[in-house]
Amino acid sequence: MQIYKGHILFTKTPDKFDIIERGYIVVENGKIREVCATLPEALRTAEVVDFGDKLIIPAMNDLHVHAPQYRNMGMAMDMELLPWLDNYTFPEEAKYADVDYADKMYRRFVKHLWKVGTMRTVAFGTVHKTSTIRLMELFEQAGMGAMVGKVNMNRNCPDALCETVPDAVAADEELINTWNDPEGLVHTILTPRFVPSCTPEMLTEIGRLAHKYNMPVQSHLSENKGEIAWVKELEPASTCYGDAYRRYGLFGQTPTLMAHCCYTAGEELELMKKNRVFVVHCPLSNCDLGSGMAPIRTFLQNDIPVALGSDISGGHHLSMFQVMVYAVEISKLHYAQSDKQMAFLTLPEVFYLATKSGGSFFGKVGSFEPGYDFDALVIDDAELNHDDYTLAQRLERFIYIGDDRQIAHRYVRGNEVLEPTW
Amino acid sequence: MQIYKGHILFTKTPDKFDIIERGYIVVENGKIREVCATLPEALRTAEVVDFGDKLIIPAMNDLHVHAPQYRNMGMAMDMELLPWLDNYTFPEEAKYADVDYADKMYRRFVKHLWKVGTMRTVAFGTVHKTSTIRLMELFEQAGMGAMVGKVNMNRNCPDALCETVPDAVAADEELINTWNDPEGLVHTILTPRFVPSCTPEMLTEIGRLAHKYNMPVQSHLSENKGEIAWVKELEPASTCYGDAYRRYGLFGQTPTLMAHCCYTAGEELELMKKNRVFVVHCPLSNCDLGSGMAPIRTFLQNDIPVALGSDISGGHHLSMFQVMVYAVEISKLHYAQSDKQMAFLTLPEVFYLATKSGGSFFGKVGSFEPGYDFDALVIDDAELNHDDYTLAQRLERFIYIGDDRQIAHRYVRGNEVLEPTW
Repeated sequence: MQIYKGHILFTKTPDKFDIIERGYIVVENGKIREVCATLPEALRTAEVVDFGDKLIIPAMNDLHVHAPQYRNMGMAMDMELLPWLDNYTFPEEAKYADVDYADKMYRRFVKHLWKVGTMRTVAFGTVHKTSTIRLMELFEQAGMGAMVGKVNMNRNCPDALCETVPDAVAADEELINTWNDPEGLVHTILTPRFVPSCTPEMLTEIGRLAHKYNMPVQSHLSENKGEIAWVKELEPASTCYGDAYRRYGLFGQTPTLMAHCCYTAGEELELMKKNRVFVVHCPLSNCDLGSGMAPIRTFLQNDIPVALGSDISGGHHLSMFQVMVYAVEISKLHYAQSDKQMAFLTLPEVFYLATKSGGSFFGKVGSFEPGYDFDALVIDDAELNHDDYTLAQRLERFIYIGDDRQIAHRYVRGNEVLEPTW
Repeated sequence: MQIYKGHILFTKTPDKFDIIERGYIVVENGKIREVCATLPEALRTAEVVDFGDKLIIPAMNDLHVHAPQYRNMGMAMDMELLPWLDNYTFPEEAKYADVDYADKMYRRFVKHLWKVGTMRTVAFGTVHKTSTIRLMELFEQAGMGAMVGKVNMNRNCPDALCETVPDAVAADEELINTWNDPEGLVHTILTPRFVPSCTPEMLTEIGRLAHKYNMPVQSHLSENKGEIAWVKELEPASTCYGDAYRRYGLFGQTPTLMAHCCYTAGEELELMKKNRVFVVHCPLSNCDLGSGMAPIRTFLQNDIPVALGSDISGGHHLSMFQVMVYAVEISKLHYAQSDKQMAFLTLPEVFYLATKSGGSFFGKVGSFEPGYDFDALVIDDAELNHDDYTLAQRLERFIYIGDDRQIAHRYVRGNEVLEPTW
């Protein structure tokens, strides 16, 4: 058992921060036993790790990120989605056929996630099985949680990234059968890149695997107007982009993440609601690639689950704190453009999306409630604190103007995660 | 004479970066004599400061920032303009009646500008003369360039921030007459807060001072729909918000900065064009306060001068590199919403706005051309450079994903500016 003391802030619900000044978190076997303002009698003599004036918050969960695009982060921001894929993304991903290159770059990627406090990640790898396994091994070595997908793609992509359907199925089944420890922190996730990259045969087979193994699925949806028009051409029998995934069993039949959803409305929205498909909102990417502004308030009003993603290198920052800020800001532009009809997202709301809502995809992750994994960050914001601020203001200031320099400790399932030594 | 060697990047024009790999900048009396790929024969034996593989770029110019809102930076981001002024901004500004408080906070503010590489600033102070002078003295001590305005306001504000017109005129004249060294780095600028804060009598008198002393002017324009409606009520004789300033001689009759201009169009736009009024684009603030998206491409197409501003604490970041990124991003949302009719801003364009365009308000500042002040930053981006990148890509990556940790040296008029020792 460990007991941690500090200023505790988390979001049990999206409407407000739960705040305990100088409170205690009691952790047993990696899980939270209780969170309290005063220790119960029986624990009064137990050893306490006292973080003093520091903040203790849930660790960050990034539900959409392209690990092999790490080299391109903060670059090529003068394009939009489809030419950006052809000119920057696909050539870089092709390099991951070389597992040594993958190893070198993935080490940097995982270390950078560590640095910014993201302790659970749902990542796209590349089409290459061996490199994708390398990424999973690195997450495991680092002690960080992840779901990693070997990307499936077999059309509209360079030869170097094209696979056959039988190869795809064999590779995915191998990953499913080897990364299946229910107690493990790292698992695989089925990852058809997006409809334009996968033939109907490919989508059919991936859907079959999802059903057979009850495997989660991630992909992209309605990011960009050009992409949507293209899907309409490619899948004329589908009533909307989301319906194309549904027809293949890839739209909520098993737990499903769909990144972006900038233009999701009408039938697609109803389908997401009915099937409990997660929207992964990636506001930096949506700005950086000129995709558009996703109607997150509408999704929340419809009780559609929403998480946040950095989506590098479509987005330019790995920090989920930056992603939260952009999520609020984009919602404020919606607010202005709707003549205040569409309420903007509040800070507790976006914090909830990056912690408890995103974390729910991993199990009981992202909150400080009994039974939850103790995934936490300890924030030393002393240098940002030159005056009297409330605890909520201190957290807001850290999110808006802080960076990795203020993250003092990181925990996953009760274990402190130190900087990877590679 | 000093000679600096390194990778030189700047924007003579907004359409592209001028790049000299391992080039030289020859500086004489604080001004650039020449920039060259090879030193001329006569200088071959001169001493050279060699920055090796580092980048040398023009220093940043922030054309709109509220110094006394420093405490609130990254806070209170759950409001829009008018309630935010009443609940957070005015109470904080009232504290600056106490010059000791002002001194304490302004030291932090100036040091933070130094940290993020902003070497020339146009700042709002408060209504208080003595505190405003303190800010000017601190800029001067730091060796950084600034135009600082004592704010004028006499209506629709708390009593503590309300002044009489004669007091305002006397204070402004004192500042004009004491901070008038043409060789100095710090000057004053007339600063009527905005139309709602100034009676017609106040605006008349400030306009008179502008004319009498040929003084520059800064204020706010068309930031928010509620504000615009309010100005219409307050100034029924004006044909638009900008016309209200024009009628009092405060709209380009002398050099004029107008922050925001989110909703400027039609007659107001024509007036800005005719009178060469600067738009100061503050994209972070426009997002953070839910104001809207300023049509910067339209201003540029109309040959209206544009600069960039951080506008803390409406905006949450002092770094002009962050402001550049947001300027590109907001323009990309415009691009998406206009169905690609409105071309987005490129990185060289926003770099030009933050350097040569904004710098032009101070004289020959913001470019590496002969006769320009040598205002520069030396960027050590080694830790961001884990692979082969071009110089343009290195600069883009520093702007997007770097921070103050990569700024190795700062220069103003040829002098290295060290961290303020306070």
